[in-house]
Amino acid sequence: MTTWRRVNDEEQWQGIKQAVALGLASLFVGAAWMVSSRETSCEAKVDDDEDKFTPEERKALPAPGQVNNLKLYTKAEVAQHISREAGGIWVTYKDGVYDITEFIESHPGGASKILLAAGKAIDPYWNIFQQHFRTGFPLQLLESMRVGSLAPGEYVEEKQADPYAVDPIRDERLILHNSAPCNAEIPEHYIMESYLTPNELWFVRHHNPVPIIDPNNYTLTIKGKLQEKFPKHEVDVTIQCSGNRRSHFDGVKKAQGIPWNMGGVSTARFGGARLKDVLEYCGVKDPEKNGIHHVQFISQDEMLASIPIEKAFSYSGDVLLAYEMNGEEIPTDHGYPVRAVVPGYVGVRNVKWVKEVFVSEQEAEGPWQRGVAYKGFASNITDLQHLPTHVIERAAPVQEPPVTSLIVHPANNAKVHSQTLEVRREDVRVRVTGEQLKGWAYSGGGRGIVRVEVSIDGGKSWHTAELKEGSEQKLTRAWAWTFWSANVEVPKELQGKSSEIMCRATDASYNSQPEHASSIWNVRGLCNTAWHRKTVHFD
Amino acid sequence: MTTWRRVNDEEQWQGIKQAVALGLASLFVGAAWMVSSRETSCEAKVDDDEDKFTPEERKALPAPGQVNNLKLYTKAEVAQHISREAGGIWVTYKDGVYDITEFIESHPGGASKILLAAGKAIDPYWNIFQQHFRTGFPLQLLESMRVGSLAPGEYVEEKQADPYAVDPIRDERLILHNSAPCNAEIPEHYIMESYLTPNELWFVRHHNPVPIIDPNNYTLTIKGKLQEKFPKHEVDVTIQCSGNRRSHFDGVKKAQGIPWNMGGVSTARFGGARLKDVLEYCGVKDPEKNGIHHVQFISQDEMLASIPIEKAFSYSGDVLLAYEMNGEEIPTDHGYPVRAVVPGYVGVRNVKWVKEVFVSEQEAEGPWQRGVAYKGFASNITDLQHLPTHVIERAAPVQEPPVTSLIVHPANNAKVHSQTLEVRREDVRVRVTGEQLKGWAYSGGGRGIVRVEVSIDGGKSWHTAELKEGSEQKLTRAWAWTFWSANVEVPKELQGKSSEIMCRATDASYNSQPEHASSIWNVRGLCNTAWHRKTVHFD
Repeated sequence: MTTWRRVNDEEQWQGIKQAVALGLASLFVGAAWMVSSRETSCEAKVDDDEDKFTPEERKALPAPGQVNNLKLYTKAEVAQHISREAGGIWVTYKDGVYDITEFIESHPGGASKILLAAGKAIDPYWNIFQQHFRTGFPLQLLESMRVGSLAPGEYVEEKQADPYAVDPIRDERLILHNSAPCNAEIPEHYIMESYLTPNELWFVRHHNPVPIIDPNNYTLTIKGKLQEKFPKHEVDVTIQCSGNRRSHFDGVKKAQGIPWNMGGVSTARFGGARLKDVLEYCGVKDPEKNGIHHVQFISQDEMLASIPIEKAFSYSGDVLLAYEMNGEEIPTDHGYPVRAVVPGYVGVRNVKWVKEVFVSEQEAEGPWQRGVAYKGFASNITDLQHLPTHVIERAAPVQEPPVTSLIVHPANNAKVHSQTLEVRREDVRVRVTGEQLKGWAYSGGGRGIVRVEVSIDGGKSWHTAELKEGSEQKLTRAWAWTFWSANVEVPKELQGKSSEIMCRATDASYNSQPEHASSIWNVRGLCNTAWHRKTVHFD
Repeated sequence: MTTWRRVNDEEQWQGIKQAVALGLASLFVGAAWMVSSRETSCEAKVDDDEDKFTPEERKALPAPGQVNNLKLYTKAEVAQHISREAGGIWVTYKDGVYDITEFIESHPGGASKILLAAGKAIDPYWNIFQQHFRTGFPLQLLESMRVGSLAPGEYVEEKQADPYAVDPIRDERLILHNSAPCNAEIPEHYIMESYLTPNELWFVRHHNPVPIIDPNNYTLTIKGKLQEKFPKHEVDVTIQCSGNRRSHFDGVKKAQGIPWNMGGVSTARFGGARLKDVLEYCGVKDPEKNGIHHVQFISQDEMLASIPIEKAFSYSGDVLLAYEMNGEEIPTDHGYPVRAVVPGYVGVRNVKWVKEVFVSEQEAEGPWQRGVAYKGFASNITDLQHLPTHVIERAAPVQEPPVTSLIVHPANNAKVHSQTLEVRREDVRVRVTGEQLKGWAYSGGGRGIVRVEVSIDGGKSWHTAELKEGSEQKLTRAWAWTFWSANVEVPKELQGKSSEIMCRATDASYNSQPEHASSIWNVRGLCNTAWHRKTVHFD
């Protein structure tokens, strides 16, 4: 049952690539066609659950074809159109026939994915990638490529199984941004209720349905080898979506993507095998001499991501192949049976449902690593559609996030008692704890928090907050957030008035947060770490 | 001649400390009394070449004693006053007798150093630590502790040798802040003349006279073992004083310390043995299991600093015991015969004239690591004298500096041709290169530069600069600066006017620079990385 294999895979990749196949025998439920797909370039793809076109861009698109005047085709005829040479690449959707030849390179999910449907119906794919139905745009775009219709009788609507029907049942307290795929954040007032976030309240950020994995047929043999062969290593890790606080960019300009407020972050104690131990066991050594620069992860749902070998192969990098989360088996929503936990890195590199791990000369392909989805461009770039390839290639994928801090208590617009700083009871969203201002701070790369400062008068004066849980972490390996609280006397002149409260943190490398979101705005809405501001009313 | 020794040193330090004595047989020229001294706590000491009292604090000091009314003592009587129990700790300076008992813990250079003179004359020490003469304050302070005078005939003025007389002869182009000890920066217009700074133009930041070391009596055997035993490893490293740009804080409030402009930075290709190889050779292994958290360096002039073991013991940390600099032997001013080169760390951790290296449970003692000298406090802390010990202890020493970028060309107040952006010839300080705006960017911890943005209209609009030399570095191991240049069209409305030009950089962790120096001002004036601004006149 153990299948720690080293596989040379020279055909597909150049240079050295020792594939450590955490080999799963094509167990991917209901979507076996996905297993062989790989992204192949860094075109201007966005993440496949985003609606990347602005209203202006949409207007500029060609109008849908005149359905009535179009030619009729059989499915057999469509099936012959699988290459440019064969007269173009065609697909069908319901009874429509479409020539997608020129569109392929622009497909947000990657050229290789859309090519899986060449000559065939895209209906089953769209049934899984329901992002295509989030807005009417993909259908509108498709109609602009219409070349005909299926002849009468050729198209029979099949009842598609809902691939999201088996997604886990989720805690009702989560704030749902989408359900298919699930993107949900933890409500503000639960963020700091405990240092380690309960599993059921962890934020969820998915790209596809949750893979349902039968541990008995899983060759990673979670109940056996991984736990037995390598010592269990436990690390407290904060994982944050790189789009957390994206909606806080709205004041500058709306950015693309899920409009996370401040709940795309959670913390757990993960337990698992150290990736370094596993790599060494599989024979990886002297990565520098052997031209190994990255470790790539592939998930059951074909999500690809990579991290630098310096991180993966360092004993102090603390990268795990984790099978435990807060002392339990990792829940399905969070990567059961195995999640790559990459402390100090943004969420997207912490690949869930790990199917394969291998070392490589290059970083992972696909929209998440080499595409635009997780790259922070300059503020003056607003049009991803016409971005030259070399600009995309040179842009850095977000790996370690920058230093940040947030005010969790009190809530925005709360009424705050000037003497005690307690929040008045009518604000039911915030628990009255007797504590004053509180929040958390965190920086990527394990850089500990050395200071949090708060202001209750719109930035005129600043006070140093007290660092609490998490402040005992080593400044070089602080993988989890640091809670803070502050007692600030409300001056007479603010009593009975509204005021802007704010916080800012400094990490062990003395990096600090930018004052305004405008200086770091980016079209993908990543890494919004501007000083966090809220308005409160002092009574 | 080889003396790679492991020494257990349990008495002085707690826990494990495998001393890798790069053993030098007390060759420290003219100051053998220093060899056994060690700092012992983290009191509010500033660096020993700083004048730490504000004018207000000075006024509050007691007036000098009435010399005429004081008692007379013999040297033998003074020699008995070496402890509190013996009636106090006394020293003499010229013919004055002083009771320093209460002052000892406040001595900026550390209690242990001043205690070396207990019962004796401090004259020879002050002759070496000439910082005591930079202002009249130390003498004024000393006078306030006067208890008497030496009896007639007891004091004979001795001609003291000038310990700085043998300091290297330095390039006249350096901008000298002090000469004893030497603190000199590279002039702005030479900073980017070459990617690697020529050795004679490297910035110099010393605490004491330059040790003169005879390689024939040096048990590190530079000409032998270090080079033979370990493979030579070469790394391009930018070293920057953590006080670089300190004077740019002046607009907010003057900070303590040498008023560096922007020339406290240089870059070289260093060659040497990897520290990891040396530590492994000396038997260091499994640092985590063995409770090893830091590697400490001691220099010939008793400067102490340490770095985390995660950095020192990582193959990708690239820490060197360097003996070459730009292909030459390391010059005396830069650490001959061996300098610890710690890529991605501030200058002070790159210890010169290394005498001893050892692993430790704790970080180094002394003012440079545990004292206030290299700690960045909150903006509202302006008085280091009354800072509680726990505040100092909890503050983090500057290790990796934050992301920064600077405009080197054109010079401040330059007249710039609006069409070509060339600087007019009458500005002789800047070479006309035909290039437009240019500068460099750098971040600590090897975090590569992913973007530099420039504005020529005071921040209203921003342009992405082109990244040049240095941009080919790995984003995870970018130890040297990245040069940049930008061609920005001067709009009609700016022509014939003065304008503020500025730059800001983003590193691979998406950290960015603070907009204003006010948000990061700190009393020690460290890590000023605010957007760099200059005024130019477009003709």
